Amino acid sequence: MFNKTPTKGMRDILPQDCELRDEIMKQIKTVYSSYGFSSIETPCVEDIKLLTGKDGGENTKLMYRILKRGEKLNESNLTDLCDLGLRFDLTLSLTRFYANNAGSLPTVFKAMQIGNVWRADRPQKGRYRQFVQCDIDIIGEKSNLAECELISATSEALKSLDFVDFTVRVNDRRILSALAKTAGFDGSNQDEVFIILDKLDKIGTEGVLKELSEINEQSAKSLIEIVSEIRNSENGLERAKELLNDATEGIQNLSEILEVTAFNKVNAKFDITLVRGMNYYTGTIFEVEMNGVGYSLAGGGRYDELLGKYTGTNIPACGFSIGFERISELIAERKRGVKKAKGGVAYIVDKNATVSEVKQIFAMASVARTDRRASVFRKAKNFRAQTESLKIQGYDYACLIEGNVYRRIDL
Amino acid sequence: MFNKTPTKGMRDILPQDCELRDEIMKQIKTVYSSYGFSSIETPCVEDIKLLTGKDGGENTKLMYRILKRGEKLNESNLTDLCDLGLRFDLTLSLTRFYANNAGSLPTVFKAMQIGNVWRADRPQKGRYRQFVQCDIDIIGEKSNLAECELISATSEALKSLDFVDFTVRVNDRRILSALAKTAGFDGSNQDEVFIILDKLDKIGTEGVLKELSEINEQSAKSLIEIVSEIRNSENGLERAKELLNDATEGIQNLSEILEVTAFNKVNAKFDITLVRGMNYYTGTIFEVEMNGVGYSLAGGGRYDELLGKYTGTNIPACGFSIGFERISELIAERKRGVKKAKGGVAYIVDKNATVSEVKQIFAMASVARTDRRASVFRKAKNFRAQTESLKIQGYDYACLIEGNVYRRIDL
Repeated sequence: MFNKTPTKGMRDILPQDCELRDEIMKQIKTVYSSYGFSSIETPCVEDIKLLTGKDGGENTKLMYRILKRGEKLNESNLTDLCDLGLRFDLTLSLTRFYANNAGSLPTVFKAMQIGNVWRADRPQKGRYRQFVQCDIDIIGEKSNLAECELISATSEALKSLDFVDFTVRVNDRRILSALAKTAGFDGSNQDEVFIILDKLDKIGTEGVLKELSEINEQSAKSLIEIVSEIRNSENGLERAKELLNDATEGIQNLSEILEVTAFNKVNAKFDITLVRGMNYYTGTIFEVEMNGVGYSLAGGGRYDELLGKYTGTNIPACGFSIGFERISELIAERKRGVKKAKGGVAYIVDKNATVSEVKQIFAMASVARTDRRASVFRKAKNFRAQTESLKIQGYDYACLIEGNVYRRIDL
Repeated sequence: MFNKTPTKGMRDILPQDCELRDEIMKQIKTVYSSYGFSSIETPCVEDIKLLTGKDGGENTKLMYRILKRGEKLNESNLTDLCDLGLRFDLTLSLTRFYANNAGSLPTVFKAMQIGNVWRADRPQKGRYRQFVQCDIDIIGEKSNLAECELISATSEALKSLDFVDFTVRVNDRRILSALAKTAGFDGSNQDEVFIILDKLDKIGTEGVLKELSEINEQSAKSLIEIVSEIRNSENGLERAKELLNDATEGIQNLSEILEVTAFNKVNAKFDITLVRGMNYYTGTIFEVEMNGVGYSLAGGGRYDELLGKYTGTNIPACGFSIGFERISELIAERKRGVKKAKGGVAYIVDKNATVSEVKQIFAMASVARTDRRASVFRKAKNFRAQTESLKIQGYDYACLIEGNVYRRIDL
């Protein structure tokens, strides 16, 4: 016999959950469309060379690799065995898509992409190996008009789903660079410094100080001091301007974004410790955090140098991605117990019904269906259990037909 | 530089196509929901043992195999290298889903599943290696109430998409068995006989006769004769009853289905030559054909013995699958040239706009967005080209803001 459980780390989605997910997706799409983002779709399977480039960051290690087809497998080299992989995010696919279709797309392209991605991560509560991301991206806009629109749209999408208590943390990779430089870390160590700083939530200031000290003790102390000064000051951005060398552009950028989005009623704030994992970010980065929730609901940033890898010329780009599974779970927890009634009528046919009776029932169902759900069922031996089940499925009433007798049963 | 084309045989879906596909999907979902089918979702990745069982038929050969992760690859055996595969249809996943979740599902479960499947088929016009299927299935209903509802719902879904000129061909595997037996083929050859008969459209009667003769010349002639008698008679089902031994159940079944669905205004007809490729069918089989279109739009049938492979006990099941790509292409061809106006307003900001001006524009866009699409753009150097592109993107008008001057531009 076959194993009936889903693939490790993946899951079956039952009707009631599917319904909720559909509603959430519809809501997000409605808001994003109203902002002028157009839906696109890319294949779930991409060239392994694209997926194993350094832009994939840590996710490359989590990739599902697809075996070549019709090849003799007498080689022992992994890269020779596989030519495709399942995508682990939507951004790499989006940039390939834009490069491939640029001729048919507007110069400033506002894209929305909702789809599954796969990561062979350690399975744990709320983290799956197949999960949905909802991305919006603006390609071709170099000014922070893009950031303002992405942040406003994502914030509005979350509000439309009744999220209230959230903050958009913003930072700029150029500010992070200035921070490392001002503290005394040279350019070659920057990536490493950022990876350590990114662990702040997990290992605390002490932990970060310790790990940074392994690179350069003096610089580590200096960096922690600057970070704490900026975090503790009334106006962090103003303080950063005073403390950091060569951060002018990044600071000017963030101050404009914060001013515009605040006017748009977005709750955004500068956070010098925000890093974001992906290697491809070049400027603004942002993340949505919510009170009492230990993970971010959405994240994104500017990646002005990714498209050049396909076209030879850099094209500015910026995106924001909602973690669909995470917000769906939060919404499901909120709605637990609130059962949504889909309504409708269940026509129940007796076992001995003649073909001509069945015809009549289908005709009745067809009429009912013009304004409600209507479905035809065979009468079960345990009729009480059957009506109970129909009630759970949301039907308002059943219509039992036995010979010429029709009986309405309220569920 | 990376290769920007999509994976071989797969494709990028552009905004205008995405929009049409979304509409079609929504329409199908609306009809199927009104019939009482509930959405479910299964992972795209399934256990390789499930996918390589004999039920996958020819599709197993087209499967994308996923390499094991974190394993040393010094083995030369394909089955040892891979543990997962991409699903090539939705039916195998549905049966696994039902077996896994039976406790949370109604005894008679009406499921709808819309999702991507993958087959490494030879790429050709209109055939892709990643494509969407729309399936409805009824699990737990052994009478042909299931067939009647599936056929009525699918027919109505197609009609709601303005398809008119189509026919549902129906047959029964038990009639096919009776045909082979009456012609003199013994049970062990039946699968082979059906595969040959299935090629009728491609190789014609002569071709089928020739190939069948290689098994048994006398039986081949006899089979072709019976088929032609049945096809040429006024009432094929009646003639089949006269000519075939042991076909009573299958014929009674089809005659009831044809009577009920005809009353439901479905254009269905018996076709003794309909075979369907999958190994798992056990009774009724059906396929939607359309005049002037050389492939079927939808297909399905009864598979009462598939679920037993997970649960040990057989559970009756029957399903109908729409070929989403095929119907989408037919609809797209129909609509070519008809451009859908999404409408909306594009706010265009001058390059030298101050932050405070940008704020005002975002505020205006936000007000406009309550009843239409509103998006913010930076003024391009080539303004004429920009407004042209906005027009193509469906915007009704642009609002150009330069300093304190607002100009409305009809597109």
